[in-house]
Amino acid sequence: MTVVKSTIPESARQVTGEALQGTLVDLLGLSLTGKQAHWNIVGPRFRSIHLQLDEVVAAARSFADTVAERSVALGMPADGRPETIASAFTLPGPKDGWVRDGDVVQVMAEALEAAIGRLRERIEATAKPDPVTQDLLITITAELEKQRWMFDAENWPKEG
Amino acid sequence: MTVVKSTIPESARQVTGEALQGTLVDLLGLSLTGKQAHWNIVGPRFRSIHLQLDEVVAAARSFADTVAERSVALGMPADGRPETIASAFTLPGPKDGWVRDGDVVQVMAEALEAAIGRLRERIEATAKPDPVTQDLLITITAELEKQRWMFDAENWPKEG
Amino acid sequence: MTVVKSTIPESARQVTGEALQGTLVDLLGLSLTGKQAHWNIVGPRFRSIHLQLDEVVAAARSFADTVAERSVALGMPADGRPETIASAFTLPGPKDGWVRDGDVVQVMAEALEAAIGRLRERIEATAKPDPVTQDLLITITAELEKQRWMFDAENWPKEG
Amino acid sequence: MTVVKSTIPESARQVTGEALQGTLVDLLGLSLTGKQAHWNIVGPRFRSIHLQLDEVVAAARSFADTVAERSVALGMPADGRPETIASAFTLPGPKDGWVRDGDVVQVMAEALEAAIGRLRERIEATAKPDPVTQDLLITITAELEKQRWMFDAENWPKEG
Amino acid sequence: MTVVKSTIPESARQVTGEALQGTLVDLLGLSLTGKQAHWNIVGPRFRSIHLQLDEVVAAARSFADTVAERSVALGMPADGRPETIASAFTLPGPKDGWVRDGDVVQVMAEALEAAIGRLRERIEATAKPDPVTQDLLITITAELEKQRWMFDAENWPKEG
Amino acid sequence: MTVVKSTIPESARQVTGEALQGTLVDLLGLSLTGKQAHWNIVGPRFRSIHLQLDEVVAAARSFADTVAERSVALGMPADGRPETIASAFTLPGPKDGWVRDGDVVQVMAEALEAAIGRLRERIEATAKPDPVTQDLLITITAELEKQRWMFDAENWPKEG
Amino acid sequence: MTVVKSTIPESARQVTGEALQGTLVDLLGLSLTGKQAHWNIVGPRFRSIHLQLDEVVAAARSFADTVAERSVALGMPADGRPETIASAFTLPGPKDGWVRDGDVVQVMAEALEAAIGRLRERIEATAKPDPVTQDLLITITAELEKQRWMFDAENWPKEG
Amino acid sequence: MTVVKSTIPESARQVTGEALQGTLVDLLGLSLTGKQAHWNIVGPRFRSIHLQLDEVVAAARSFADTVAERSVALGMPADGRPETIASAFTLPGPKDGWVRDGDVVQVMAEALEAAIGRLRERIEATAKPDPVTQDLLITITAELEKQRWMFDAENWPKEG
Amino acid sequence: MTVVKSTIPESARQVTGEALQGTLVDLLGLSLTGKQAHWNIVGPRFRSIHLQLDEVVAAARSFADTVAERSVALGMPADGRPETIASAFTLPGPKDGWVRDGDVVQVMAEALEAAIGRLRERIEATAKPDPVTQDLLITITAELEKQRWMFDAENWPKEG
Amino acid sequence: MTVVKSTIPESARQVTGEALQGTLVDLLGLSLTGKQAHWNIVGPRFRSIHLQLDEVVAAARSFADTVAERSVALGMPADGRPETIASAFTLPGPKDGWVRDGDVVQVMAEALEAAIGRLRERIEATAKPDPVTQDLLITITAELEKQRWMFDAENWPKEG
Amino acid sequence: MTVVKSTIPESARQVTGEALQGTLVDLLGLSLTGKQAHWNIVGPRFRSIHLQLDEVVAAARSFADTVAERSVALGMPADGRPETIASAFTLPGPKDGWVRDGDVVQVMAEALEAAIGRLRERIEATAKPDPVTQDLLITITAELEKQRWMFDAENWPKEG
Amino acid sequence: MTVVKSTIPESARQVTGEALQGTLVDLLGLSLTGKQAHWNIVGPRFRSIHLQLDEVVAAARSFADTVAERSVALGMPADGRPETIASAFTLPGPKDGWVRDGDVVQVMAEALEAAIGRLRERIEATAKPDPVTQDLLITITAELEKQRWMFDAENWPKEG
Repeated sequence: MTVVKSTIPESARQVTGEALQGTLVDLLGLSLTGKQAHWNIVGPRFRSIHLQLDEVVAAARSFADTVAERSVALGMPADGRPETIASAFTLPGPKDGWVRDGDVVQVMAEALEAAIGRLRERIEATAKPDPVTQDLLITITAELEKQRWMFDAENWPKEG
Repeated sequence: MTVVKSTIPESARQVTGEALQGTLVDLLGLSLTGKQAHWNIVGPRFRSIHLQLDEVVAAARSFADTVAERSVALGMPADGRPETIASAFTLPGPKDGWVRDGDVVQVMAEALEAAIGRLRERIEATAKPDPVTQDLLITITAELEKQRWMFDAENWPKEG
Repeated sequence: MTVVKSTIPESARQVTGEALQGTLVDLLGLSLTGKQAHWNIVGPRFRSIHLQLDEVVAAARSFADTVAERSVALGMPADGRPETIASAFTLPGPKDGWVRDGDVVQVMAEALEAAIGRLRERIEATAKPDPVTQDLLITITAELEKQRWMFDAENWPKEG
Repeated sequence: MTVVKSTIPESARQVTGEALQGTLVDLLGLSLTGKQAHWNIVGPRFRSIHLQLDEVVAAARSFADTVAERSVALGMPADGRPETIASAFTLPGPKDGWVRDGDVVQVMAEALEAAIGRLRERIEATAKPDPVTQDLLITITAELEKQRWMFDAENWPKEG
Repeated sequence: MTVVKSTIPESARQVTGEALQGTLVDLLGLSLTGKQAHWNIVGPRFRSIHLQLDEVVAAARSFADTVAERSVALGMPADGRPETIASAFTLPGPKDGWVRDGDVVQVMAEALEAAIGRLRERIEATAKPDPVTQDLLITITAELEKQRWMFDAENWPKEG
Repeated sequence: MTVVKSTIPESARQVTGEALQGTLVDLLGLSLTGKQAHWNIVGPRFRSIHLQLDEVVAAARSFADTVAERSVALGMPADGRPETIASAFTLPGPKDGWVRDGDVVQVMAEALEAAIGRLRERIEATAKPDPVTQDLLITITAELEKQRWMFDAENWPKEG
Repeated sequence: MTVVKSTIPESARQVTGEALQGTLVDLLGLSLTGKQAHWNIVGPRFRSIHLQLDEVVAAARSFADTVAERSVALGMPADGRPETIASAFTLPGPKDGWVRDGDVVQVMAEALEAAIGRLRERIEATAKPDPVTQDLLITITAELEKQRWMFDAENWPKEG
Repeated sequence: MTVVKSTIPESARQVTGEALQGTLVDLLGLSLTGKQAHWNIVGPRFRSIHLQLDEVVAAARSFADTVAERSVALGMPADGRPETIASAFTLPGPKDGWVRDGDVVQVMAEALEAAIGRLRERIEATAKPDPVTQDLLITITAELEKQRWMFDAENWPKEG
Repeated sequence: MTVVKSTIPESARQVTGEALQGTLVDLLGLSLTGKQAHWNIVGPRFRSIHLQLDEVVAAARSFADTVAERSVALGMPADGRPETIASAFTLPGPKDGWVRDGDVVQVMAEALEAAIGRLRERIEATAKPDPVTQDLLITITAELEKQRWMFDAENWPKEG
Repeated sequence: MTVVKSTIPESARQVTGEALQGTLVDLLGLSLTGKQAHWNIVGPRFRSIHLQLDEVVAAARSFADTVAERSVALGMPADGRPETIASAFTLPGPKDGWVRDGDVVQVMAEALEAAIGRLRERIEATAKPDPVTQDLLITITAELEKQRWMFDAENWPKEG
Repeated sequence: MTVVKSTIPESARQVTGEALQGTLVDLLGLSLTGKQAHWNIVGPRFRSIHLQLDEVVAAARSFADTVAERSVALGMPADGRPETIASAFTLPGPKDGWVRDGDVVQVMAEALEAAIGRLRERIEATAKPDPVTQDLLITITAELEKQRWMFDAENWPKEG
Repeated sequence: MTVVKSTIPESARQVTGEALQGTLVDLLGLSLTGKQAHWNIVGPRFRSIHLQLDEVVAAARSFADTVAERSVALGMPADGRPETIASAFTLPGPKDGWVRDGDVVQVMAEALEAAIGRLRERIEATAKPDPVTQDLLITITAELEKQRWMFDAENWPKEG
């Protein structure tokens, strides 16, 4: 029995559901690893990046909520439980313990770049099945690309 | 080599560090399971509990940040990575998929009760080693006990 | 003689104009029937749904304004007069007099579902003639689908 | 069976109910025709009147809500459905399509004047049956008379 | 010797003073019993009614202040001491201990109805002696009737 | 030729117009003498009364605006020119130069008392011709009576 | 049968419950007597103390709510009904009728001092049974001691 | 005997005092004539100028307060009583009764121009005696010149 | 060597980069010419259009920032230097010196129309290379079309 | 080697630097002695002056910051260390321990008067070397003269 | 024919007009080059300077508006068109393309220093012709000198 | 004779008084040395640390006020005069003149560490005599430890 009805046809739900669930995991994971870096960062650029990370976390949390609510609005429960994130999240993140400021900048730029790569695939995949979901993914991508640029600009000149 | 110096003696750090790290995991876990229920709840009390859950999540997120920053302020890195939460979090939470409103109320009351039980032990354990940390744990307990009461009052008459 | 010039070709205006005028009627109608239910609802869930309906009305009013201003911006007067709404509005709504809370939930879910069905057709129809209008319709659809989900989740278990 | 009890005697409800329902229709109608003019107005005074109309609409919407809630508070359901407004609303309003700024000013002054005339009759009629309702109608009249003056002052020297 | 002079004649003060003092006791009493219910309510509608009661309390407190200040402005000290309220307050209220949500709704509807009945008598009594006081009592009645309707609408279908 | 039309009959305008114009002069005069005292007051209670006077001035200015706009809304120009106030204003006020705090308190209590006396006559006079204007005068009286009480309470024990 | 479960052992509830219920009565009583003085005070220091009393009332109301909610959170209904306050409240307060400003200052200093004395006993009594409740009582004491100092400083040189 | 001491020598007070008292009269007068026009203006530009006049009035009121307080701060009581303004105010202003929008614009431009002419003389006169007062007069001039420009720009093409 | 990496392929950057740089110049140019008109406008509609122009400028500045940051986020430096704007900006604008209100309205409608024409080409051009950029251009177009309509509606009846 | 370059010639820096450093010490000293009185004041005017002192402190702190930043902006480090203030601050202030309200008023009037005397000398001294610094000193003087007047007005009739 | 009249004599307008037009160009130019650097900056201090530049731009834009409006208030149209800025702006600015953080700091310090040099000349030149304009230039100089200091302090130790 | 009575026994006042007075000196001293560094810091991290220091100063000022008011609330005057701070303050601080950013970070970490060491002793000393004071000291310690961590994290890798 259907619990919450969908407003898109069955065929469209499969692709859309996967795009949303995958994005949810990426955003929740980013909100956790962003905070991890926010707390454990050390180095002369501490304060500047400490504050910058909280903007990433705030964006990730807010988008995660919108993404999950879009999923249930289409009749598909969202899954953001700790065990789901732990097993499905694959973006790079800071290691355990203290992290140098320069390393934080680099890992955040990489994590955001990886997240953006997946989002761009999902934008293409959802264009036909659900342009409403696609529009949401485009909005998220725009914001993550802005965040990524700022870490990348900060990561210059690149070491090595 | 010490990265961030502690302001309490080495002997006190062990107990305090464990109390803080354990509380961090409980709070981050609660913030994830609270959102999980916020999204997937169904039933006639949907709206009321949907909103109530966001207050739990907001409190949990805010306290998690304070707890983690207290830990690093004492010279101990905090660990809030997805894999850490997944393996260390043991409070009850909503199952995967849609959840009935009455079940949400019950599981939240249980989860908060369990979290409070642990906090009361940590309050006792940290009294001597670090009264500053103890004071923070007391504040968190007061808030979680308030939240728990509201779910418990809502859970009446108890089924079965 | 042209009063306000259009920025899209004549051929595109026909489809776009119909999509906007149809959406305007649906939104103004929803803002009236949402208020009707907001006032006359009775039953134990009165307060929760009374408040929820005001969020639907606020969204409908705000989008109606944007939709009408988009229409005139494209050189087509908007028509939101009482007689126009009365004759063109076809979404389900609460009957006259007191309405039970459960009935309100159901009729709002149905009304929103019907409105969304029409919007999805208009999204498709305006993609080529005017992607700017399409983008607005996508935004409206996202919001109405979110509102619909909340009524539907609340409408569980479904009677009968 | 009574659904919502009244706090005034049956004899007083008839007059009061008619006064409130009639006022509700006038205000909801004004909120629609005010927006109609807000969108379709053209002419050199466009911006000034476009903004002024939104103040009329905001007042009309807010008072309509208060009037309808007063009606149900007295045990009489309110009726603000599209078909009710369309059939019961008799105040002058802008015609379909573009409207010249001077014509908008004149029709708004006339519509407000007509609404005020009815309100003054209802103020007299409700004095005895329900002074609480009368007080609300007095407040509405004060505001509409202020709005009417501003359109009338703007409508000078009168054409023709 | 007069402490604070009155601006109405001695003959008018007697009636006005009694109307204000009686209203003060009713409002202060309501603010206490409303809080009593706010704290001790249990049942599935806990959160919704818990919040609604705080709106009653806020209104009662604010009006009590205005009523008492009106009394002293007319040269008559106000009396809101605990013993005065305890002996003069006669509206129904929640019993000691936990209270079921449905019982709270019913007792609040009854208490507000009784308070309104008295206010309507005072509105009539003060019309001649002091229309300024009458206007204040009308405003209070309008608000309490609105609050009463919401509890009454929520109290449907009535048990028994 | 009529410039701004009235919404009340000619017979009612005479009384209403006089009531409003007289009130306007009293309020504008009070706003000037209140400021005069605000600037020139000396004595140990300087700060407390200096601040209290600004509340009187703020109220007087705001009500003056409403009163004047009510007059024009009824088709009667308002007259608040310096020469009009100087010749028509008869309430007591502070003398030229420095003024002792106790004298300020006394003169403000007297000025407000005189203004209230006139307002009560106008409330009676406008009851039939224009209850909307009457309602405004009642509101002003309530506020001025509150302000008067505070100066009178402060003026105790009365000297002499 | 338990309605709301407690998170502290039965043995601890007795002491904690008495401490909270006693504090609740003191705070609600203070909020009533503070208002009583706020309204009926006369004398040259009227305005200054009139405002100061509202700060005491605001603090008392806010703490009363927190105290009562802490009590129910521990599974003990709170009792703030008029008759309970009237019979259990024993702090000094202003007498009936007008009160001189100097007398208000003195009675408030005495009432706060008495309340503080009781709170300090309860702080000691709850240290072991419930440090969370103790922490709340400490916070309340800090605020009341601040308020008491200000009345005491104002009460100098002491008469007689 | 000196009441409030001055911080500038006796010789400087004469010039400074006259400059401040003269400015006070001009500003209070402008605040009254600005309101006069605000109320009685008629014509198609009603709303735009009605709003603009309130900005002049707000500026004039605020500067009048600063100017008067500067005067007393230098040991010279300020005089803003109705009779003083009426006899000392000489700037042009709107005539009694309704005023055409174009006439308002012209008279305001003239009144501001005249006020500015006097201010420029006072700026020169106070340069030596009190540069602090001069700085205040410069600030007022800058604002009035801005207001004047806007009326003058609006007054184009000039009639006649 | 790459400074800031792009998240779209090289082939897509060329088109996207040109679209963004061209839009940047148009928006910065509009923000300058809009201010130019804001300052130098004369005529009876001065105030209304003076304020309207500031809304255009605020929108142009805000979008210019977003457009430039999108460009750098894609690895392409933005160029908004004075000399670049001067040489690349080709939209019509107000001439040097005073400008009549009617002329301002006309030139703004033309400038916005030209800007919109270019934006619509860029919307089409970027659809494939970068839908994220396309979405931003759609948002800008919607706003500029709204602004253009308001100037065009104001420009009626068209002269000549 | 120059650390921060100056924008005024070397000859001008000497005078300007001394004026700024002297003002900094006076303001920081006032912010400390103002707080000292704010805490230790006793007497019937306690609350009024307690609040007034915080306004002096807020102004002194804010101006001190601006003055110090102006000094460094001119290439001269500012010196606000405790030992510097202690040795260079010479304005009168409250003695150790409790202070009577009347004494506070007198000492604050004297301290502000002394500070103003020095500022007026510095205004003259900096006119040529740096009119920008002079303008800042003028602004500070205006505010301190306003504060001084209020204490002086309160200090009347002067004892002895 | 004069369009907007001046309030200063013809002889004074020449100098004043040149001072204002020159300042306008400098400020508009700075607002563009500041944004240019805001977008294209790279290096480890990216975030800190990126934010700092927006404060310069906000100040420059706000002052430009005030300067231009002062010019027209004196009867002289302002010229801020793109071609005017491009040809008249001579302050140093960032080159095209990416810019290193250290280079941004240096070029901003230089640009502000050059702007300040010109402003100081204009302050001297306008002292007699128009002290009101001079006061505005002093205010701008104070702010730019503060901004310059911060870049200069950041630019230490200076390279080379 | 007692001026302000204490609510704790004489024996407890000695220890509590010393703890509060010592903390007051440390906090006021920190607020001065924090500002000293805020003004005179130079180096590439200027802006980031300049802002961070203001947060330390804001916290120190706010806590100093609370600490001093707690002292007087216990009947002991507070001493925060310049000479007291100069003689009693012993925490490290920035030297006179310009200070390098790295040196500021190090000295602030050291000063905060020293302040925390003393606070921890006072927390222990006041536990029995006055738990209310102890609670305040715990709150201050938590904040200073957070501030210290941020400087320490920024001070890595440590030089030398």
